[in-house]
Amino acid sequence: MNAYIISIGDELLIGQTINTNASYIGEKLSENDISIVKIATIGDDEKAVLNEFKTGLEESDIVLVSGGLGPTHDDITRTCVVKYFETELVENEEVLEDIKAIFKKRNREVTEVNRAQALVPEISTPIRNPRGTAPGIWIETDDKFFVVMPGVPYEMKGMMDDFVIPTLSERWKDSGIFIRRRILQTTGIPESTLAERLGDIDKLLQGSKLAFLPSIGGVKLRITTEASTEEDANSRLVEIEQKIRAKAGRFIFGKDNDTLEEVIAKLLIERDLKIATAESCTGGLIADTLTNISGSSSYFERGIVSYSNASKVELLRVDEDALAKHGAVSMEVAMQMAAGVKAISGSDIGISVTGIMGPTGATTDKPVGLVYIGYCDDNVCTVKKFVFGNERLLNKQRTLYAALNMLRKQLLGISLDD
Amino acid sequence: MNAYIISIGDELLIGQTINTNASYIGEKLSENDISIVKIATIGDDEKAVLNEFKTGLEESDIVLVSGGLGPTHDDITRTCVVKYFETELVENEEVLEDIKAIFKKRNREVTEVNRAQALVPEISTPIRNPRGTAPGIWIETDDKFFVVMPGVPYEMKGMMDDFVIPTLSERWKDSGIFIRRRILQTTGIPESTLAERLGDIDKLLQGSKLAFLPSIGGVKLRITTEASTEEDANSRLVEIEQKIRAKAGRFIFGKDNDTLEEVIAKLLIERDLKIATAESCTGGLIADTLTNISGSSSYFERGIVSYSNASKVELLRVDEDALAKHGAVSMEVAMQMAAGVKAISGSDIGISVTGIMGPTGATTDKPVGLVYIGYCDDNVCTVKKFVFGNERLLNKQRTLYAALNMLRKQLLGISLDD
Repeated sequence: MNAYIISIGDELLIGQTINTNASYIGEKLSENDISIVKIATIGDDEKAVLNEFKTGLEESDIVLVSGGLGPTHDDITRTCVVKYFETELVENEEVLEDIKAIFKKRNREVTEVNRAQALVPEISTPIRNPRGTAPGIWIETDDKFFVVMPGVPYEMKGMMDDFVIPTLSERWKDSGIFIRRRILQTTGIPESTLAERLGDIDKLLQGSKLAFLPSIGGVKLRITTEASTEEDANSRLVEIEQKIRAKAGRFIFGKDNDTLEEVIAKLLIERDLKIATAESCTGGLIADTLTNISGSSSYFERGIVSYSNASKVELLRVDEDALAKHGAVSMEVAMQMAAGVKAISGSDIGISVTGIMGPTGATTDKPVGLVYIGYCDDNVCTVKKFVFGNERLLNKQRTLYAALNMLRKQLLGISLDD
Repeated sequence: MNAYIISIGDELLIGQTINTNASYIGEKLSENDISIVKIATIGDDEKAVLNEFKTGLEESDIVLVSGGLGPTHDDITRTCVVKYFETELVENEEVLEDIKAIFKKRNREVTEVNRAQALVPEISTPIRNPRGTAPGIWIETDDKFFVVMPGVPYEMKGMMDDFVIPTLSERWKDSGIFIRRRILQTTGIPESTLAERLGDIDKLLQGSKLAFLPSIGGVKLRITTEASTEEDANSRLVEIEQKIRAKAGRFIFGKDNDTLEEVIAKLLIERDLKIATAESCTGGLIADTLTNISGSSSYFERGIVSYSNASKVELLRVDEDALAKHGAVSMEVAMQMAAGVKAISGSDIGISVTGIMGPTGATTDKPVGLVYIGYCDDNVCTVKKFVFGNERLLNKQRTLYAALNMLRKQLLGISLDD
């Protein structure tokens, strides 16, 4: 089975919005062994939309459309569906109830334009949308699938995950080839160093595939194996995974969609540990990330964003002499911040960061990108120095991942040396 | 003049790489008043590539291709150009010198595969590439322009800026149409309510265009005007902007690429105000966002992430009785948190948030999505209640933007009532 993706919106053509929706849809389809013929991005223009519907249905088994389902005048996708399939709009009771429920929760009256969103093409099955007021559209015709989703990324993602992929998945099970994929998530090692560590790739893979996918948080390794039975595909996957783990195991923090913060949350919960953070240069990003996990109140005690020197002294008991002598961005202050937040909060672990995120703030002996990360528990206090780049927001991200990885290594007893 | 963008690469179809190249090309073209017909993203497949070349040249004046110019076996774009235009490859002396220079700089010998990159289609003008070894391709035929650039973003951007846009710009000066665009950034008002507030759109626009672009932070309004003189296009734009501002001015926080945090930072710096934050449910996200601006230490004093009840009492002087009586997620505690962090930090403004981000944590009388946001300055203390949705990370984002908008309104003396 193959698919044709259509993204609708002037903002995509003029570069005002980057087309992340098409990437997400493409990723989910290919994870489920559906190949993608083309991604066509067009503007809010009826002729272009109708033309693309036609081409998509001619060239592929599945057409997935996103964008242009909103309630305002520039949203023309639903009207185009009605024209293309020569059907009519009818009010759908369930969708209307969904819309009413959303407005009730927001304590607002349902407006006329939103009520009109309960009108769906007669030949379609509406895809319910718990995240917004625009329902999706699902049409099956001539052995083809035609799917329309909203352009708002989180609404589209919800529909893909909850409805589109599960519904399509019933159809592709009998293709005769079993493909298995696994991602190993690494952090704290550059792509080229990781590649060198893995050695002879062809020998490692023996016909299977391995992709290196670098991002700010680390390099993902995606293994892909194929075989005529599910068992063979799985056993090849496991074999390659074991070989990779033997060579780079301590850089691998998780599998598939694991995040570093989830892995850490799990370790903290298992061991019944509480953590507190003292952040300067990251401005709360570490606390924010640690509390992205539902149930984080069981391990996250408090966070201090000690931006001013006064706040470091008052809230973390950092020594004024140390601040004067070494400066706020120093090994000594990082250590005192971590120890201070641990002691004051009564937590098991204190984490601290202090640094210069740039582009301003460098001094003669302290460059932009300089960061100290501190860790204290009942047995050890340690500070590590990092020098990142020149871009402020990237530096905040890099500091975050370095701090989380330091925490992970300490929890697992892995040396901080590399 | 109009353009057709073709992006080539399997990695774009399967969502491994987000197509930022097409966005960049689209942005540069539309900045120069060239409209974009379509962005077609296809894989490394000869038939698909040739087919797209044909469609692109039929449907538009300019075809811009990126990707597939590299030296390895899966790079097929140059071969496709040769086939499509029925030409031949010839070695280009200048390009070969460029490649040799790059290798000399890297202290390496020119490899055979890289030397082969000096072969260019005979009917083309090569576009020199100081950033990499693949030259671009420029072909003029039948009043059409056909341009091929590498897929490496930084090489493509260099070619766009240094050669493609300047060369094309000589041609479109006499098109006689001037297009102007402006974005008005709104927050705190749903798309449909905003649309109703603007009233009769056709009357408002009188032939110009208005797009509603919703995101979690708010709805962007993009105005597009066209006229035969620059002055007319500008004056239409200003006229529409004024009409929109008259109807929805207090929801508009900025223009074009402004962010809410930048606008707030500017207000705080202008008035020499210091701010401190006390966050529970957002876990540091507000502090993180306020410190994303370089120079934030001039207005951001400190942030407290008071996750545990103990931290609320110890760090913010929240009354234990209030916690016991009303619970941590309450009007009273939000108020005490904002007042507490302001007083303890000696800042001019204290902002607080407390809420239930979900999916767990709801009680019989407090649903997931319930949030109280508090604001205190020297003259006023105020708390506002919100009820958001069920998704944790979205709730954090929504709380962030609601808090920033509340802060913006207070700073500007706008009523919080809507």
